[in-house]
Amino acid sequence: MVFARLTPLADATAWIDREVAGSLEAECLSLSKAPGRVLARDVVAERDSPPFDRAATDGYALLAGSTLGASAYNPVTFRFDRNATGTFPSAAPIALGSALPPDADAVVPRQLVELDAVGNSFEIIEPVAVGTNVERVGAGFCEGTRLLRSGVRLGPNEMGLLAESGIELVEVVRRPHVRLVVTSSDVAPLGSGVPRGAAFDVDAPMLTALIERDGGTVEIRRPGRESWTAIRKAVAVQSAEIVIVIGGSGLGANDLVVLEALRKCTPGDQGLAIHGIAFRPGSSAGIGRIAGMPFFLLPGSPVSCLWAYEMLAGRAVRRLSGRAPGLPYLQYEFATARKIVSDIGFVEIRPVRLTSMAGVVEPISGAPPEGTGGLFATVAEADGFVVIPEGSEGIRPGTRASVYLYDDQRASPSRF
Amino acid sequence: MVFARLTPLADATAWIDREVAGSLEAECLSLSKAPGRVLARDVVAERDSPPFDRAATDGYALLAGSTLGASAYNPVTFRFDRNATGTFPSAAPIALGSALPPDADAVVPRQLVELDAVGNSFEIIEPVAVGTNVERVGAGFCEGTRLLRSGVRLGPNEMGLLAESGIELVEVVRRPHVRLVVTSSDVAPLGSGVPRGAAFDVDAPMLTALIERDGGTVEIRRPGRESWTAIRKAVAVQSAEIVIVIGGSGLGANDLVVLEALRKCTPGDQGLAIHGIAFRPGSSAGIGRIAGMPFFLLPGSPVSCLWAYEMLAGRAVRRLSGRAPGLPYLQYEFATARKIVSDIGFVEIRPVRLTSMAGVVEPISGAPPEGTGGLFATVAEADGFVVIPEGSEGIRPGTRASVYLYDDQRASPSRF
Repeated sequence: MVFARLTPLADATAWIDREVAGSLEAECLSLSKAPGRVLARDVVAERDSPPFDRAATDGYALLAGSTLGASAYNPVTFRFDRNATGTFPSAAPIALGSALPPDADAVVPRQLVELDAVGNSFEIIEPVAVGTNVERVGAGFCEGTRLLRSGVRLGPNEMGLLAESGIELVEVVRRPHVRLVVTSSDVAPLGSGVPRGAAFDVDAPMLTALIERDGGTVEIRRPGRESWTAIRKAVAVQSAEIVIVIGGSGLGANDLVVLEALRKCTPGDQGLAIHGIAFRPGSSAGIGRIAGMPFFLLPGSPVSCLWAYEMLAGRAVRRLSGRAPGLPYLQYEFATARKIVSDIGFVEIRPVRLTSMAGVVEPISGAPPEGTGGLFATVAEADGFVVIPEGSEGIRPGTRASVYLYDDQRASPSRF
Repeated sequence: MVFARLTPLADATAWIDREVAGSLEAECLSLSKAPGRVLARDVVAERDSPPFDRAATDGYALLAGSTLGASAYNPVTFRFDRNATGTFPSAAPIALGSALPPDADAVVPRQLVELDAVGNSFEIIEPVAVGTNVERVGAGFCEGTRLLRSGVRLGPNEMGLLAESGIELVEVVRRPHVRLVVTSSDVAPLGSGVPRGAAFDVDAPMLTALIERDGGTVEIRRPGRESWTAIRKAVAVQSAEIVIVIGGSGLGANDLVVLEALRKCTPGDQGLAIHGIAFRPGSSAGIGRIAGMPFFLLPGSPVSCLWAYEMLAGRAVRRLSGRAPGLPYLQYEFATARKIVSDIGFVEIRPVRLTSMAGVVEPISGAPPEGTGGLFATVAEADGFVVIPEGSEGIRPGTRASVYLYDDQRASPSRF
């Protein structure tokens, strides 16, 4: 396929950022359903935490004022019997985390105190300051404190903080619904037996996992490659936030039916706004708008499909679901053991593997820049990838490069 | 609480690695259910990919041998009409990815060929090598190739590779089932209204999310703190791979009932093998074995509970589910803006935040080393944490330290 002119990747990215400007609206979920979701609004505390003064250790709660003047020569005796009358001030055994009695303002640790023979009283031989071993009401946070910012993804720690604040319902960004329209004529879905003259469909299972990783939900339609109206019908149903059309992105004779299906028909259409983008693998990808929905036309070849998703469609899914729009991989600096070549004019994605030398990566030889081949080199052989900007001829050996890693633990296992 | 002797964290870790030696057995799942799971065995290709020679570009398939001797002075004409007799060799239009006809071994790209007026033939003016623009059978991988290693977690790329190989069922490590036994007497579960004299239960929702992050499933029991037999009954049911007992880890008066419940009763018991471990927050944690199951006794204070899970119980869950056993956080090197203090003899976990200076972190002031307080400092204020080994007095300002980060994108947003 040959495009007369390829659009710079940055222009395609700018189109996506403009047309898919913000995240979807909020939905209200109970806390137990919220892990992994993105907050649609700031969360503000509705009460103090802790909700009362509480003991910060196991021990005995008492009124600090009663210990004034206590010394080895002038011990002050505290009794547990609250109803006793007389000159003895009272104390009460208390467990770490329990609310202080109303007449106490300090806690003496259990191990610093020796009880009398009956276990009913003890002596204090030095003054205790007000608030000793007391965690004051609101020490964690006060009513009105902003606990979490809009845009935060709810992990285990956030679940704990929300529970601490007694919040039962949270407003999170709704998950974008993505429709996959598989037009590839030479693939068969898994489970249909070994196809004759066709390969198994790689793109739909791969994209499903990618979209779910990015916070979206997926439906799959398979209109085939026979009729443009069948493809158009599968694309234009207005029940998705994003449509991804797979296959038919080239300019070959059997791609024309797909391009025909995506042309401007109704006022809500823009058709293919951009077709042919200067990155590899995946340069035949296109983006546009049909029936009011942004759509992405991705190449059917699995490796090209993968990268066209990551660079284009995934960005839109991540934006709608409230995630960071960039590539969702860890980046580390590595030195490169060998030259990684790249053509000027293309952003190029090249798989790399870690070498036996710490902090050094090397390109995977034979991984084609515009692969029609399978995913083996990318998946089974690579530890990550580099993205080489369009103005660069590649990365010289020994140069440091930012590597997107598939697995953090392989690069730097935790000592703890 | 005061322990006569604290066990070094490394000894506790060694106990876990010995008692929870390997991952659980395999279970067989259909591919669509497998994302996020860990492979229990190597996956070996059962067929070649691609399954046939296929076109690597849109163009015309032909027999390379027929182009021998072709030149501008001696063009060779190819005709599409397969049934025509005569001296003309035949060619066939072919789309990228389609199987080559049996009598073809090369593909000439569409854009390099000019068809005759009727569109039925074209001329070739230089020889074409065998295999030009052909992706050979098995170019991706061959039958018998190891596609993925045991222990790999199935992400989107792996889903694509498995689909390409036509694999419909995969053997993955079974998810460990974890029972949470909440004994805290001064907390109430969410949804029970604002409790009087009690706080909301933070630990169960937080641990549920942590365990699910680490690949486990969760059930929750709340026997309270009244009777050791009730606690024992909740602990000893043999339907979990791991039991986590929350609260009662200290040596206070109201902790004794929990310790009583965990003592050695039956031949399958070891009781508390280790109690009191030299790390903070969370030093009152314990580990042991009851009714044949490893159990973890975690402090009820949320911050201590969090870290005791991460350092101890989480390690066991991650081992059983086939994950890397270490802390599942990204690690980056940062400089520290201020001294981070730590006591010798304790592994200490200290929250840090990124400063406005790139590559520099600072400790969060006021975060107590053994927090009874809430999660606010850890969750809302921290970008990550450092773990200071037991032999260190802390990290000097300007020193580089390995920081475990909560969010990769905050530290190094992707350019693409």
